[in-house]
Amino acid sequence: MALKLYGAPMSTCTSRVLTCLHEKDLDFELVLVDLFAGEHKQPPFLVKNPFGQIPALEDDDLTVFESRAITSYVAEKFKETGYDLTRHQNIKEAALVKVWTEVESQQFHPAIAPIIFQFFVAPLQGNSPDQTIIDANLEKLGKVLDIYEAKLTSTKYLAGDFYSLADLHHLPYAYYLMKTPAASVVNERPHVKAWWEDISTRPAFKKVAEGMNFGEK
Amino acid sequence: MALKLYGAPMSTCTSRVLTCLHEKDLDFELVLVDLFAGEHKQPPFLVKNPFGQIPALEDDDLTVFESRAITSYVAEKFKETGYDLTRHQNIKEAALVKVWTEVESQQFHPAIAPIIFQFFVAPLQGNSPDQTIIDANLEKLGKVLDIYEAKLTSTKYLAGDFYSLADLHHLPYAYYLMKTPAASVVNERPHVKAWWEDISTRPAFKKVAEGMNFGEK
Ligand SMILES: N[C@@H](CCC(=O)N[C@@H](CS)C(=O)NCC(=O)O)C(=O)O
Ligand SMILES: N[C@@H](CCC(=O)N[C@@H](CS)C(=O)NCC(=O)O)C(=O)O
Repeated sequence: MALKLYGAPMSTCTSRVLTCLHEKDLDFELVLVDLFAGEHKQPPFLVKNPFGQIPALEDDDLTVFESRAITSYVAEKFKETGYDLTRHQNIKEAALVKVWTEVESQQFHPAIAPIIFQFFVAPLQGNSPDQTIIDANLEKLGKVLDIYEAKLTSTKYLAGDFYSLADLHHLPYAYYLMKTPAASVVNERPHVKAWWEDISTRPAFKKVAEGMNFGEK
Repeated sequence: MALKLYGAPMSTCTSRVLTCLHEKDLDFELVLVDLFAGEHKQPPFLVKNPFGQIPALEDDDLTVFESRAITSYVAEKFKETGYDLTRHQNIKEAALVKVWTEVESQQFHPAIAPIIFQFFVAPLQGNSPDQTIIDANLEKLGKVLDIYEAKLTSTKYLAGDFYSLADLHHLPYAYYLMKTPAASVVNERPHVKAWWEDISTRPAFKKVAEGMNFGEK
């Protein structure tokens, strides 16, 4: 049976999973969940994810939620298909993929998420972006990217000289960031900028980015 | 060569890894990093973790940091040793371990971490705990635990009827929470309370908890 992904193309967390599915060359069906209609808070969706958030993946009778758990499940179950995102044949490289995947989750995400919220979600809720929140988190993000800059001086990608799930997980939030004036936090750091240009032009992500028009008419 | 863990027993992130090492019955050396002396911000430690945070694990010539990446590396590398924390022989169960491990990281942790900070770290910095921050995050945490309560009505542990890394990752922050008045957020939910009593009395964690005396004389 085909994989079914419940989500919305413009959502950051959905597009993280979409990118992974494309890298793995997998067939799947995207089932739209209408956030504006509150479909994610209704019982049929809550059965798939009790936290009422997209995305969720159905693989036969198994339902997996949390975008990073889905990508990790997909990358492992289909390790022999498409691009190898986890370096499963080399325990040391695989360990470094885990490390930098956690760095995205614990260091990068907490800094970038509030910035994206202020630029894209606050206006939809009738508020203008709160510059104090943006500035405080840009400072945090800049410190994280200073460490990326140093790392990317010695290896081409975060976990080593190979593109992996660790890089991929950054794409959706960074993509929206690059549409804002805060893009300078990336552009001012030459190795981070080169890394961003590299990972964001992979065919798998370019396909996904076409649907990422949140906040646009 | 033996595993070397750099950290401090009272630190939440170190004790997450310590608990995992004990569940896996592994020999290791704990190398103390003196946070109060700022040892984690000095070059010898920054080589191990450029983010300047404990813990970091050395396994021969490989260094792994980020507590959840370390536990996942250890659980996988030593999957045949000690207690099976990842259900590696069953892809569906392993997927659910991933899901609930991500839930800890993305839902539980962001709510509980500021509460622990206010109760334990703020006083060390000469501030009294900020009740507004505590209350806002207790509300968030309560909503997360409502979902745990429903889940734990149908399975004994988060990912199913087996203890796993997903449960283990909750131990350190929950342990400190249970020393505060905010413990009621656990005690008011009967299945969450029973789950907590079960997981916190496993021998592997009881050994670790003896060293978790942060904020005490
Ligand atoms: N940690 C979750 C976050 C999921 C999430 O925040 N999804 C958003 C869309 S990008 C959502 O469903 N928001 C609606 C809500 O939280 O009510 C993941 O990575 O999947
Ligand atoms: N996400 C990291 C967090 C590590 C962390 O916050 N460690 C604390 C001790 S529990 C630390 O080193 N704090 C000092 C600092 O951040 O400067 C992990 O899970 O390992």
